[in-house]
Amino acid sequence: MNRHGYIGRKMRTPELKEKPAIIIVSFGTSSRSEAVLDLFTTALEQRWPEHRIFHAFTSAVIRRRSGNPSLHEALAHAEAENFRRVVIQPLQIFPGTEYQQIAETCEFFPGLRTFLGETLMHRWNYIEEVLKVLEQEFLPPSTGLNLLALHGTPLAADPANIVYLGLERLLHRRYSNVCTASLEGTPDFTGLRNELVRDNAAGKFNELRIIPLLYFAGQHAEDDLMGEEETSWYSQLTAIGFDDVTCLSTTLAGSDYYKGLGYYPEIIEFFLQRLARVMGLAERY
Amino acid sequence: MNRHGYIGRKMRTPELKEKPAIIIVSFGTSSRSEAVLDLFTTALEQRWPEHRIFHAFTSAVIRRRSGNPSLHEALAHAEAENFRRVVIQPLQIFPGTEYQQIAETCEFFPGLRTFLGETLMHRWNYIEEVLKVLEQEFLPPSTGLNLLALHGTPLAADPANIVYLGLERLLHRRYSNVCTASLEGTPDFTGLRNELVRDNAAGKFNELRIIPLLYFAGQHAEDDLMGEEETSWYSQLTAIGFDDVTCLSTTLAGSDYYKGLGYYPEIIEFFLQRLARVMGLAERY
Amino acid sequence: MNRHGYIGRKMRTPELKEKPAIIIVSFGTSSRSEAVLDLFTTALEQRWPEHRIFHAFTSAVIRRRSGNPSLHEALAHAEAENFRRVVIQPLQIFPGTEYQQIAETCEFFPGLRTFLGETLMHRWNYIEEVLKVLEQEFLPPSTGLNLLALHGTPLAADPANIVYLGLERLLHRRYSNVCTASLEGTPDFTGLRNELVRDNAAGKFNELRIIPLLYFAGQHAEDDLMGEEETSWYSQLTAIGFDDVTCLSTTLAGSDYYKGLGYYPEIIEFFLQRLARVMGLAERY
Amino acid sequence: MNRHGYIGRKMRTPELKEKPAIIIVSFGTSSRSEAVLDLFTTALEQRWPEHRIFHAFTSAVIRRRSGNPSLHEALAHAEAENFRRVVIQPLQIFPGTEYQQIAETCEFFPGLRTFLGETLMHRWNYIEEVLKVLEQEFLPPSTGLNLLALHGTPLAADPANIVYLGLERLLHRRYSNVCTASLEGTPDFTGLRNELVRDNAAGKFNELRIIPLLYFAGQHAEDDLMGEEETSWYSQLTAIGFDDVTCLSTTLAGSDYYKGLGYYPEIIEFFLQRLARVMGLAERY
Repeated sequence: MNRHGYIGRKMRTPELKEKPAIIIVSFGTSSRSEAVLDLFTTALEQRWPEHRIFHAFTSAVIRRRSGNPSLHEALAHAEAENFRRVVIQPLQIFPGTEYQQIAETCEFFPGLRTFLGETLMHRWNYIEEVLKVLEQEFLPPSTGLNLLALHGTPLAADPANIVYLGLERLLHRRYSNVCTASLEGTPDFTGLRNELVRDNAAGKFNELRIIPLLYFAGQHAEDDLMGEEETSWYSQLTAIGFDDVTCLSTTLAGSDYYKGLGYYPEIIEFFLQRLARVMGLAERY
Repeated sequence: MNRHGYIGRKMRTPELKEKPAIIIVSFGTSSRSEAVLDLFTTALEQRWPEHRIFHAFTSAVIRRRSGNPSLHEALAHAEAENFRRVVIQPLQIFPGTEYQQIAETCEFFPGLRTFLGETLMHRWNYIEEVLKVLEQEFLPPSTGLNLLALHGTPLAADPANIVYLGLERLLHRRYSNVCTASLEGTPDFTGLRNELVRDNAAGKFNELRIIPLLYFAGQHAEDDLMGEEETSWYSQLTAIGFDDVTCLSTTLAGSDYYKGLGYYPEIIEFFLQRLARVMGLAERY
Repeated sequence: MNRHGYIGRKMRTPELKEKPAIIIVSFGTSSRSEAVLDLFTTALEQRWPEHRIFHAFTSAVIRRRSGNPSLHEALAHAEAENFRRVVIQPLQIFPGTEYQQIAETCEFFPGLRTFLGETLMHRWNYIEEVLKVLEQEFLPPSTGLNLLALHGTPLAADPANIVYLGLERLLHRRYSNVCTASLEGTPDFTGLRNELVRDNAAGKFNELRIIPLLYFAGQHAEDDLMGEEETSWYSQLTAIGFDDVTCLSTTLAGSDYYKGLGYYPEIIEFFLQRLARVMGLAERY
Repeated sequence: MNRHGYIGRKMRTPELKEKPAIIIVSFGTSSRSEAVLDLFTTALEQRWPEHRIFHAFTSAVIRRRSGNPSLHEALAHAEAENFRRVVIQPLQIFPGTEYQQIAETCEFFPGLRTFLGETLMHRWNYIEEVLKVLEQEFLPPSTGLNLLALHGTPLAADPANIVYLGLERLLHRRYSNVCTASLEGTPDFTGLRNELVRDNAAGKFNELRIIPLLYFAGQHAEDDLMGEEETSWYSQLTAIGFDDVTCLSTTLAGSDYYKGLGYYPEIIEFFLQRLARVMGLAERY
């Protein structure tokens, strides 16, 4: 029994492809978010015009609606097209629970050599680079408070929590008007809200700007961050005295969107750098 | 890293299916051989009417022509449809090189619990059962010589060779007019031909009947066994003096076919028994 | 070589059990702590009356005294009784070093499909639920200081430390009179003691209540928390000026016990929910 | 995740044993066969008087009757007694299907370093040594025919079949009056019977002696070899003309037994040599 055992075992070996296939893994695109994924795909195809590119989506709900393939299916299609080396680049921001699942699917997929790219925030120096881009969006201390919205993981012992807690600490020491909380875990929003009350933050800052650290700022931004319900961050922040709570937004092809990281050309470039790094490994390994 | 690690890791677990999916793996069907696979599928659906059934095909050539899925793809589709338990029944005759590939693909497929059924000739007592069915097709010793055509494996150290050599020995001790050779390995046809010449078999037997031990007796029967070329068994046997060399054939829906094992109702029943055995295990394991 | 390879390999397959066995893993019960484990077992048997239930104990010392089985032995007994699917629910509070050992024993046990339940504090939202129960025991800020006693892990890079540090931070932002320390690691008691001295906590709070976050508050509570020795938390807290240091206690069947988490009906219910979650997965996986 | 990961992870490491434990694996003893296992155990305890010895039994039926432990249970007991190195010596004759199961159980058992001894007939030179012992029991060609009864495996592609077929070939070239067949596979008894008829063996030899190559010649000898039923070897051999069909037997402590290999002091010595070989490995590996 050997996960790679069957390669070349048959009488005639199939005509295998020489260049590795590329699989881009994202959460999944609604009709609205398709435009932002197109920005990435266009840049990708310009950089690697001769590679076969597959897309895979992690959201079962969106896949069901769209008929798009899962990562398992994209890997299987690549295998069926006679690729045996596949480079997988996820559009994940943090190396968290979902990245771990992607890594395990790739690692154990039979018959393929898989090479998995790193996430946007995989290394402390990457985090610094990303912050330099985002700084341009920060309200200055004289004007307002910036709140970075992280995804978070529900699993308390997931090592991704180290990144979240480390990032919080890093922001606290770098900026006097930047705080952070996560949607599904730690650092928790309730704790942050208590702290903002304790410190009378609403008295000090007129404005509060939410900056989503998500590739697509879709449902999460519309509902959890800026929704009308009492539990949304918008409602809770308004309730503790912030008058002017907004979420960063942008315009693409005439439509307005909450501005996820996928809209920044610099972030797209960072993801292409992650991919280039792992492509380099795939060539020699 | 854990092949099954992601079970239930996310906040909400998906709505998983309760009954296992069934995947039938065959070599692949040309338009001609589709009819014989339909015989099996009909019997299968009657026996397990409430299970989701997928088909997978091992021949890359036929898949390319037909757009049918590979085993990797069928497993990936089952996973995407929220099955986590999958029973795989191959229509292989012998536990050989291709069965080994199937076993490895199933064993290492990430995120699924797979249960692989045995082949038609997996056990010595199964081999005896199959021979009892085939005996009805044998020419009697007074009339002619029977030649069982096996697939064979090119790999010299593959344990499947034990089955081929053991079967040859078993036939020799049981029948006075049954011999065997394989298309791609041992026991080799050249050796058999030499032996037939040495024993003056063409002088003793008027007729020689080739009985293919293949599920579909397609290309292999048409070209390698009965083809016009000098290298076909037909040509070589004729050249050493056999006047009447035929290959067992049958009629289905008005068309004539070389009679592979897939045409026998008893063989279909045996495959359903293999599947029933592994379904029983899948319920408790 | 295949950990599950022998499934159905023999001529006759054994009569396998259909429902999975359940194994409850706890640290081990002295004669005193047996009563608190009985509370759980009674609730468990009411919820799953038709499942075979095994108990396993992680403490070698207690096992030697009592003759009770280890987890290895309980798994082996289940296998010998023809179970092939086993659901394991540990009564661990945190997903720490010992949980990791349990996970590895289950994952690699030959011939069984094992399904491991999560710990009480496995997810951030579980931690919030548990705190809501414990809040009822907290002294109000006007009366005293609450000190949650965690187990902790000696291993500095164990991801469980994230939970401990995250929990400390969460408590700090939620409550003005709740602090925490662990018995064997971080957050360290010496650091906490220094902080209490610096903040003159003994001057602000008359009373200090220790609340053990342990399933059984046995030896640890009697010796390490409330013991007479100079190194006990009681002695050290008294030495820095706290006059009234107590540990939460309760009465069961006429005896007094330090109140571990196993005495709370809500906590028992949470563990049954963990088990229900993994039982659901075991049915479909 | 690491099968050996937990060793030494906890604060205090347990008091581990220095010498490896020894586990002897046999099929299982009825009250009758216990005497023959005692012969082995006595010799074993004399050779390794300072090692802890466990017994494990592979027959589920006999275990149920006797309450004896399975191999899983014996390994678990060794682990619970703080052994971490275990030498396992099976009393199997051939490296067949059951030996494979034992190997997989040992290989994947969590937390133990296991060292598995070879079977009696594991190597071609061992086979020669064993035949030298058995030769003393062979009827001379002038007197009769000897039939070695092998266990066999039902699985047609199991590599153990190579040993069975190789042994048959070896016997055929060495002796003019020794043949062989297996109880559950190849070489098949029906084929042998046909051959004996074809060669008029019953006309040439007055006597036929069955020599069981089984450790315990229990149920198999009493029913399958020498039973009254028409399907027993005794009945079938008598039916084709053999007048004097016997099975080798012996006397132990006043009782008569069919003579399995466990009665020969030389065979016991061979098993101790197998064990000594793997004990040597366990000391340095």
